[in-house]
Amino acid sequence: MSAIINNIEIIKAKSTKINDVDFDDLKFGSVFSDHMLVCNYENGKWQAPKVTPYEPITLDPSAKIFHYGQSIFEGMKAYKDENENVWLFRPLDNFKRLNISAKRLAIPELPENYFMEGLKTLLEVDSDWIPKNEGSSLYIRPFIFASGNGFHASPADAYKFIICTAPSGAYFSGKVKVLIEEKYSRSANGGVGFAKAGGNYAGQFYPTQLAIEKGYQQVIWTDDNTHEYIEEAGAMNIFVRINDTLITGPTSDRILDGITRKSIIQLAEAENIPVEVRKISVKEVVEAAKNGSLKEMFGAGTAAVISPISGFGFKDEDFDIPELEETYASFLKKRITDIQTNKTEDPFGWRYEVK
Amino acid sequence: MSAIINNIEIIKAKSTKINDVDFDDLKFGSVFSDHMLVCNYENGKWQAPKVTPYEPITLDPSAKIFHYGQSIFEGMKAYKDENENVWLFRPLDNFKRLNISAKRLAIPELPENYFMEGLKTLLEVDSDWIPKNEGSSLYIRPFIFASGNGFHASPADAYKFIICTAPSGAYFSGKVKVLIEEKYSRSANGGVGFAKAGGNYAGQFYPTQLAIEKGYQQVIWTDDNTHEYIEEAGAMNIFVRINDTLITGPTSDRILDGITRKSIIQLAEAENIPVEVRKISVKEVVEAAKNGSLKEMFGAGTAAVISPISGFGFKDEDFDIPELEETYASFLKKRITDIQTNKTEDPFGWRYEVK
Ligand SMILES: Cc1ncc(COP(=O)(O)O)c(C=O)c1O
Ligand SMILES: Cc1ncc(COP(=O)(O)O)c(C=O)c1O
Repeated sequence: MSAIINNIEIIKAKSTKINDVDFDDLKFGSVFSDHMLVCNYENGKWQAPKVTPYEPITLDPSAKIFHYGQSIFEGMKAYKDENENVWLFRPLDNFKRLNISAKRLAIPELPENYFMEGLKTLLEVDSDWIPKNEGSSLYIRPFIFASGNGFHASPADAYKFIICTAPSGAYFSGKVKVLIEEKYSRSANGGVGFAKAGGNYAGQFYPTQLAIEKGYQQVIWTDDNTHEYIEEAGAMNIFVRINDTLITGPTSDRILDGITRKSIIQLAEAENIPVEVRKISVKEVVEAAKNGSLKEMFGAGTAAVISPISGFGFKDEDFDIPELEETYASFLKKRITDIQTNKTEDPFGWRYEVK
Repeated sequence: MSAIINNIEIIKAKSTKINDVDFDDLKFGSVFSDHMLVCNYENGKWQAPKVTPYEPITLDPSAKIFHYGQSIFEGMKAYKDENENVWLFRPLDNFKRLNISAKRLAIPELPENYFMEGLKTLLEVDSDWIPKNEGSSLYIRPFIFASGNGFHASPADAYKFIICTAPSGAYFSGKVKVLIEEKYSRSANGGVGFAKAGGNYAGQFYPTQLAIEKGYQQVIWTDDNTHEYIEEAGAMNIFVRINDTLITGPTSDRILDGITRKSIIQLAEAENIPVEVRKISVKEVVEAAKNGSLKEMFGAGTAAVISPISGFGFKDEDFDIPELEETYASFLKKRITDIQTNKTEDPFGWRYEVK
């Protein structure tokens, strides 16, 4: 069955898998909707995108993705409100960041309309897959990888841009304890840390496994040169609250410019919460934990939304962050998810209706 | 057609592509032999390897290789001597390095016999593909990537180890001019630079493109913190000769421990060439170029063997390295390729016969 919506060709799946899915018990990113968007870069240009059934990808063994890690991705969510209207959150920022990543990874930049029209069309086709339950959403994964062939270590001549979606529940289950890293690093000055490049994530797995073995869920990365400053977590930017001030590190070429992070900064400012964007030393956080002025610590990212951190480890010492009654984390999380899910006004113009 | 050699199952290709190949005009890594070795990691262990036809790989769109760059590789060569005997060069060192990379990338380590027996069997099956022409060889590409599914940023539960081979000519054509990098970096302290991780290569493409646009072929990476010390090139370690002393930087967690590099150090020592393994500052190299004591500079790696560098750029200035009659580069290249191709004694026990 084939159709055209928004100028985009649609090849429908023969049957749906949706009846196998328990929408009351969704994990993160492990069941996939019926369709995907596919767009190929060939002969020096991005070809028209298509919606196809969610189906396997076939590649030559010499495809450069297998050898040289030339890949980038984005992470977004779609929400359905009470009236079945569908919303995205700042989607153009994801599009722009995808192209920032593309440039650094020598991947050809994608035209905006292929991204936006492609995404909207895919969401229309699979709108039944967008969860309505509180705390659930449709996780959206746009990605681009090198599908061109050859062992020469140079950019590929062919790429695939794909969007898959996965109805998802919470990223973390339970409390999050983090380990402040003093040996391994996530990114280099002048490297690709600011890009959502596949290789940035693989490099974190081993140090994170070591942290998990010690009883933590995540690593907080520090700068690779001195390990004295807090950078970010695996897939979240990091905020600390010292007394009543909310602090987050500045972005740099080592740190992802998170959309949740910058939204939180704006929200907090609008709510008259004192916010500082400046370097945060590990020493300062340890001292604040010791003298009781460290009131909160939380991660912020699309997948994890706002995830409170209950304690951290550093140099074989463990520090608990006592639970407060009223936290910035829960206040800001409610503010941001209410905007995302169309439960409240959107003074910032962040919400984007898919129709 | 199916058979068993060295305990390994072989599924033969229906026909050969070898008659389409011009062995007198081989590029690097762009035509592939008839077969490949495939070994899957599933249910917590590496399953028995198989030789199969060289054929496409089919993966779910959520396979972690597409999203998180969890992949590693090796590069080796097989040589055929006058008597049609087949030789490898220090293959166990490649195997060990593959497992060093595997550990850092949270990929399950591979058993030695799967690698060695698998490789030997593949070379037996495709022995006709090993070139005999001077300067050509069979480039061997062992690689492992995450084939397991899911969007959670964590190690996959399934992997594929594959060996493909490609009859290949020279990696570089013509003179190599390099740019000493002062802005971008290849790797972080505590990062994955010492591993042959896919993502390390993608990160180099964009800065290398910028260098190519300026008329250079390669970037020489410097440390990400000060950019004051020379590290290595895209797929080669770097040697400089100042007066009569051959110098190369020490390996570290940022630099690949190249097999060619360490062989050259041993060869030079055996030939009474003064060798130093120590940090090389850019300043020292620039000064040596200015006062004429910089006699040679060359890259060393399996693909590029020993590639003389004819000049370098640094901070908008260009430095030529005048051509000598007798160079360490050509002397050492002959020594190492004579050993590799069984034209001479092998006092170090590096050669490994495939039979
Ligand atoms: C490394 C890293 N930092 C931070 C974030 C948070 O960014 P965003 O809020 O745009 O999702 C992510 C995830 O997207 C990430 O991968
Ligand atoms: C980054 C890097 N450095 C150095 C080398 C040289 O190592 P080897 O001599 O073992 O091939 C390679 C290629 O293999 C490489 O990829």
